[in-house]
Amino acid sequence: MSFRKLDELGHRLAALEHALAILGADEATHMAPGGGEARAEAMSALAGMAHRQASAPEIGDWISAAETEDLNPEQQTAVAEFRRHYVNLTALPTEFVERQTRTRMRCEQLWRDLRAKGDWAGFLPALEGVIELAREEASLRAGVLGLSPYDALMEQFDPGNRVADIAPVFAELKAFLVDFVPKALEVQERRREKHPLRPLSGNYPIERQRELGLAMMTAVGFDLTRGSLSVSHHPFCGGVPTDVRITTRYRTTEFLSSLMGILHETGHALYEQNLPRQWAHWPLGKARGMAMHESQSLFVEKQIGRNPAFWEWALPVVEKHLGEAWSKDEILAHVHHVERGLIRVDADEVTYPLHVILRFELEQDLISGALEARDLPEAWDQKMRDYLGLSTIDAPQDGPMQDVHWPSAAFGYFPSYTLGAMIAAQQWAAIEKEIPDVEAQFAKGQFDAVNAWRNDRVWSQASLWSTPELIERATGEPLNAAHFTAHLEARYGG
Amino acid sequence: MSFRKLDELGHRLAALEHALAILGADEATHMAPGGGEARAEAMSALAGMAHRQASAPEIGDWISAAETEDLNPEQQTAVAEFRRHYVNLTALPTEFVERQTRTRMRCEQLWRDLRAKGDWAGFLPALEGVIELAREEASLRAGVLGLSPYDALMEQFDPGNRVADIAPVFAELKAFLVDFVPKALEVQERRREKHPLRPLSGNYPIERQRELGLAMMTAVGFDLTRGSLSVSHHPFCGGVPTDVRITTRYRTTEFLSSLMGILHETGHALYEQNLPRQWAHWPLGKARGMAMHESQSLFVEKQIGRNPAFWEWALPVVEKHLGEAWSKDEILAHVHHVERGLIRVDADEVTYPLHVILRFELEQDLISGALEARDLPEAWDQKMRDYLGLSTIDAPQDGPMQDVHWPSAAFGYFPSYTLGAMIAAQQWAAIEKEIPDVEAQFAKGQFDAVNAWRNDRVWSQASLWSTPELIERATGEPLNAAHFTAHLEARYGG
Repeated sequence: MSFRKLDELGHRLAALEHALAILGADEATHMAPGGGEARAEAMSALAGMAHRQASAPEIGDWISAAETEDLNPEQQTAVAEFRRHYVNLTALPTEFVERQTRTRMRCEQLWRDLRAKGDWAGFLPALEGVIELAREEASLRAGVLGLSPYDALMEQFDPGNRVADIAPVFAELKAFLVDFVPKALEVQERRREKHPLRPLSGNYPIERQRELGLAMMTAVGFDLTRGSLSVSHHPFCGGVPTDVRITTRYRTTEFLSSLMGILHETGHALYEQNLPRQWAHWPLGKARGMAMHESQSLFVEKQIGRNPAFWEWALPVVEKHLGEAWSKDEILAHVHHVERGLIRVDADEVTYPLHVILRFELEQDLISGALEARDLPEAWDQKMRDYLGLSTIDAPQDGPMQDVHWPSAAFGYFPSYTLGAMIAAQQWAAIEKEIPDVEAQFAKGQFDAVNAWRNDRVWSQASLWSTPELIERATGEPLNAAHFTAHLEARYGG
Repeated sequence: MSFRKLDELGHRLAALEHALAILGADEATHMAPGGGEARAEAMSALAGMAHRQASAPEIGDWISAAETEDLNPEQQTAVAEFRRHYVNLTALPTEFVERQTRTRMRCEQLWRDLRAKGDWAGFLPALEGVIELAREEASLRAGVLGLSPYDALMEQFDPGNRVADIAPVFAELKAFLVDFVPKALEVQERRREKHPLRPLSGNYPIERQRELGLAMMTAVGFDLTRGSLSVSHHPFCGGVPTDVRITTRYRTTEFLSSLMGILHETGHALYEQNLPRQWAHWPLGKARGMAMHESQSLFVEKQIGRNPAFWEWALPVVEKHLGEAWSKDEILAHVHHVERGLIRVDADEVTYPLHVILRFELEQDLISGALEARDLPEAWDQKMRDYLGLSTIDAPQDGPMQDVHWPSAAFGYFPSYTLGAMIAAQQWAAIEKEIPDVEAQFAKGQFDAVNAWRNDRVWSQASLWSTPELIERATGEPLNAAHFTAHLEARYGG
């Protein structure tokens, strides 16, 4: 029976993915510094084994045969998702993948070296090479999937996402934000005039911050019997659903960036920890794409962790662990701080989408050929001035050399960040209707009801639906920018 | 070229072994408690992949072809070791391995449960099943290897070890120890009458013990850029040569068991860290068997760590980290404590070999059929009374139910422990001749010369030679009990 063969393949691939996930998390947390070369060699060999096994020609035959077998509905859906993975995995010829991997890795290395120096001229030829291959990839995938080239790239990160649906929503959001950012800044300034910002004391021992982080993450639902918190240079959520590794980094001068980071990664972790266990070794059992994953992390960070009601419960917890008493207004002034800046990863929830929309617009033009890499600095600067009133023309390291995504050929990924923020706000709006006292619950440190809703509507659904389907099934309507703009209005509009 | 195929196979197997080693170490140190089931599944699948790839029929053809190719001497030796591994790996039919694995795992589980209760009658049938299959395994391996059955089992742990060579050496050692143990105890008693034992203060914070352990392990040569120290329930040395994971456990009431444990594992780690890197992905590049590995751990623990000269350097280090001053005589009274006991793993270096020789004698008879499992309690008790003057007849949990080795079908392993102690003493005797001031060096905290000798004679040799060849090449003579007995005489004979 071919379904059984696919099921067994799933177990083999799950074992290799388990190893890759734990080796990857271990590399960033516990590996000895000299272990990197052998680790990279081992992981690359294991990834090669996984790819060869998952893309072998006979898998296509098994899937075709399984599609004609007498299966229950769950198995049928599992086969469909096997098919989707297989089609995407085999859309590119091996020769192309090897060429692209070499080009991409060279460009990434160059980027790490030249970004610090702001050397755009030195970086440009490598980026041009990556863009050329990204256009080729988009065209190859488009042919296989029957999609437009840029849609075919987005499809890798969020199945079902289409420019035709997203572009108008982003355009609406952009129009709102270009006006709203100055307004939010003005509101903030007026507030600060009345209530000057109380600075952080600057003395937060790491061990206490860690205890605080553990207290918060478990309160909002992280299961410490199936996961852990450690330290790494770049915070991440990794590991496997039964052993989710989240990390943070600490600065003893302040505690909010680590705490908010822990809540963000906890959001990712809750999704992973609550995926259906019985599907764990099937593609069907995986989380549904990057936008939905980001919506879950942003939900915990922004909808829970930056919610004023949350801080009614959280402030005594902070005081208990850090020995420092704050009023709600004092802490919210930090938690809701808005600032125009050049750097996406440092941006707050008001300005962040403009960074993403800028990139979304530029990368569509890069893939279509309407924009060439050599014209990026000017195009970037123009949009930066239009959207945020800032210029990057003299600082390419803060402009088109800012992110690792393009050097590593991840075109089509950026929209996921802002889609995630919008989905989180839309889910929050639905929850507020269905659980009217949800904020009163937060104020008491109760997160069971909100998690039950999310488990029912998102986590338990794994990869049963496309991203747009999952949004609509969870919230009762398609993606709608109004929920996110209403959220920003309520929190930052004064 | 077939050698290239073997070389590529080596890289693939090394990647899987890397994953298994790190996943195994991670499981005992950093894994979330709920991650065990998925981890076991993943590791078993990866082990299956490694076994299938290493034992595939075409590998035999590649080896045969490579044996006729025009290779340099290093490659020829590599092929010979590929052959040795392949022969041992394929000596047992798959059907037999599966049957044995099931029987063994059931017996191990039963052992964990019934040992605590001392339920020999409940345990006996499972052990009988394991012994029956061990006899079958020994006979199958003997046929393939052209060895006697018990030799064929020892060959898995220490290539080249033969009863004909070891039994006389062990017999000599036993005769010596049966007289020497009472003498050493008498010497100790006389000393204690003059100088009563100064008890440990019983207040040793874990973090300080850890710092002390790190200071000692790096002083004797552990490279912290290619390894680390963490905590686990059972101390071990795991990981990979570029990232060796050693562990310990701490009790705040005393510091010597953790410190000596760390030195022991550091001995294993030094061997792994200093294996030739260019052979890392070949069987040739692996450490030479269990006896030689144990000799390296015991060398650091006993020849270095329990050497009085070592403590001249070590006492100020202990004082610095634990804030407690000891005289050399005071600490040596603890470090050289001798005591007759029932439990092998708790035994000191004087009494330990008698525990091993007892098991070595019994398991030869179990494999040959001269002894049946049901007669083990009496046979064990008889030897225990003869060798150590103790009885286990009323406590099977301290007798034949004591160790995990037999329930897990590891017959032929026990000799490695005492061979390791003898090899360490023999290497020490050679070193004392070649580096006459070695103890003066220890007293100054200098371990470079002794490590250079061991690197030259042992670590760099990896699996170039059989165990007996390696002993003789390193020390200039075959295994000779006189060095170990002389060592015990000098340290414990008064």
